[in-house]
Amino acid sequence: MPDSGTRPDLAAIKEAAERISGLVHRTPLLRSRSLERMFDGKLHCKCEHLQRVGAFKARGAANAVFSLSDKELGKGVATHSSGNHGAAVALAAGTRGTQAWVVMPENAPAVKRRAVESYGANIVSCRPGLANREAALQKLVDEKGVQVIHPYNDYRVIAGQGTVALEIMEQQGDIDLLLVPVGGGGLLSGSLLVIKELRPQVQVIGIEPACADDARQSLDSGERVIIDSPDTIADGLRASLGDKTFPIIAELVDDIVTVSEDAIRDATRLVWERMKQLIEPSAAVPVAALLEQQIELKGRRAALVFTGGNVDLDRLPWQQREGP
Amino acid sequence: MPDSGTRPDLAAIKEAAERISGLVHRTPLLRSRSLERMFDGKLHCKCEHLQRVGAFKARGAANAVFSLSDKELGKGVATHSSGNHGAAVALAAGTRGTQAWVVMPENAPAVKRRAVESYGANIVSCRPGLANREAALQKLVDEKGVQVIHPYNDYRVIAGQGTVALEIMEQQGDIDLLLVPVGGGGLLSGSLLVIKELRPQVQVIGIEPACADDARQSLDSGERVIIDSPDTIADGLRASLGDKTFPIIAELVDDIVTVSEDAIRDATRLVWERMKQLIEPSAAVPVAALLEQQIELKGRRAALVFTGGNVDLDRLPWQQREGP
Repeated sequence: MPDSGTRPDLAAIKEAAERISGLVHRTPLLRSRSLERMFDGKLHCKCEHLQRVGAFKARGAANAVFSLSDKELGKGVATHSSGNHGAAVALAAGTRGTQAWVVMPENAPAVKRRAVESYGANIVSCRPGLANREAALQKLVDEKGVQVIHPYNDYRVIAGQGTVALEIMEQQGDIDLLLVPVGGGGLLSGSLLVIKELRPQVQVIGIEPACADDARQSLDSGERVIIDSPDTIADGLRASLGDKTFPIIAELVDDIVTVSEDAIRDATRLVWERMKQLIEPSAAVPVAALLEQQIELKGRRAALVFTGGNVDLDRLPWQQREGP
Repeated sequence: MPDSGTRPDLAAIKEAAERISGLVHRTPLLRSRSLERMFDGKLHCKCEHLQRVGAFKARGAANAVFSLSDKELGKGVATHSSGNHGAAVALAAGTRGTQAWVVMPENAPAVKRRAVESYGANIVSCRPGLANREAALQKLVDEKGVQVIHPYNDYRVIAGQGTVALEIMEQQGDIDLLLVPVGGGGLLSGSLLVIKELRPQVQVIGIEPACADDARQSLDSGERVIIDSPDTIADGLRASLGDKTFPIIAELVDDIVTVSEDAIRDATRLVWERMKQLIEPSAAVPVAALLEQQIELKGRRAALVFTGGNVDLDRLPWQQREGP
């Protein structure tokens, strides 16, 4: 893994915003009258499900890829994320005219394979399991000299994801609460670096599935806890914090809240029904926390991030009560 | 049926916009990079699925209800539409502090009943069939003296729906093509009255399901054709043109195009997947016409109306291939 630079500050995140502005959308903030009435406060929803590739991941991948020199880019880039980050790396690489390789287990769903292919990536199949994926990725580094773009444990990626919070503050600077889903922690750490420098009085809360509560456990124990392959419907939040994201979150976050699988399903459906926005379950955890009254909105002005909208429409979250 | 005034002109539709501005949202126009690439032209989507009650119907109902005097409103309003118009009448009546009655067949889906109830309407059950619904409505008129708000064959409703086109022209005045779903024709006739006075060079095309093609047949024969209970997945487009909407459409429309049920399903799914916008099948007919290459977008600047977003999430359009 090459060096990903140093921990970004607000200035670095503003530079990232500039760097990626030609590729990513400035997504809208949406409000919902019925959700605001339900939770009795202001709720501005940052629509990253309307972002390129359908997820905020477009930002971090673009910042990392665009930070590379033409020489570094010459041999291509690679990742072993088969989700939104894989598509994001492929898009950014294609924009810069270089190749992207995405390592995927041979049992990955065809729908994910097609999505990554549709952005022009080369797929490298491997046997299932993290060790096999990492070995396949290392082989690409050794044989082709590709640059690896990690989905979250990379300061350039963290800076890119931080541009979400930067835009929220430009669009609605008077919020007093920001709710962010937590998987590997790239979006949360990037957001904290923006908010705590720009307007530290804004409370920032991370939300994760109770059955993938590595961030909560890490905060409690003071040491980074890793949960291997947790089983949650919020498939974008299965990763554990990395050694670059954990220290930022431990230092700056106001709280980490966990939510049940049922609340995640109910929240996803609520947003589809009331807001007509097709978000993926990972994006619904802030609303799940409101539904479970773990976070009180009454009289407050909150923003939350709808992190992505990539869902298999043949198998909806509420048609999977039997477990993922 | 009371008189609904005279055929509205642009000035009347501007007055309607003013009248309803406190109740309805000014909905956004959304573009989709992937749809624009697919169809090779500009495509501005008017998001009436984000409107109050989840459909443009909020506009016409509000204009009709708000046009009534306090005395006329005193005894309440009524309709026999069990779809979006029923909810819209209930919302408008509640806002003006009067009662709404909605006549529904006793076999109506519970989900529709709950939706209408949630807006505060009184539900009057009747046996299935249009004659029974009309008889139940007439009974309300005779016994309670309610004002009937027809879902489309009412000039006040037509003027309200016309405010959709007025907003589109304010938001994106340089379009050369407007695509509008056609059921009873309220939205299409209102849109025509705006466009053909404001910017007559804009081509306005109505789109309807091939198996509910009363507008196409009416235009061809020069006489209003009524199709009784057509069987289409686009449940908001089952009505036939009324004697107030047909003459406006016959005089002003550029064309009526019909689309297949498969194209409607595919278009609905395409918008969900690519735009992450949860629209109902009735709202997808313009995209269906593009998919079937019945309308050519190449090099043009088009707007279309996403008319509504009320879908039963337990029974998706593409899970109903066996027919509605």
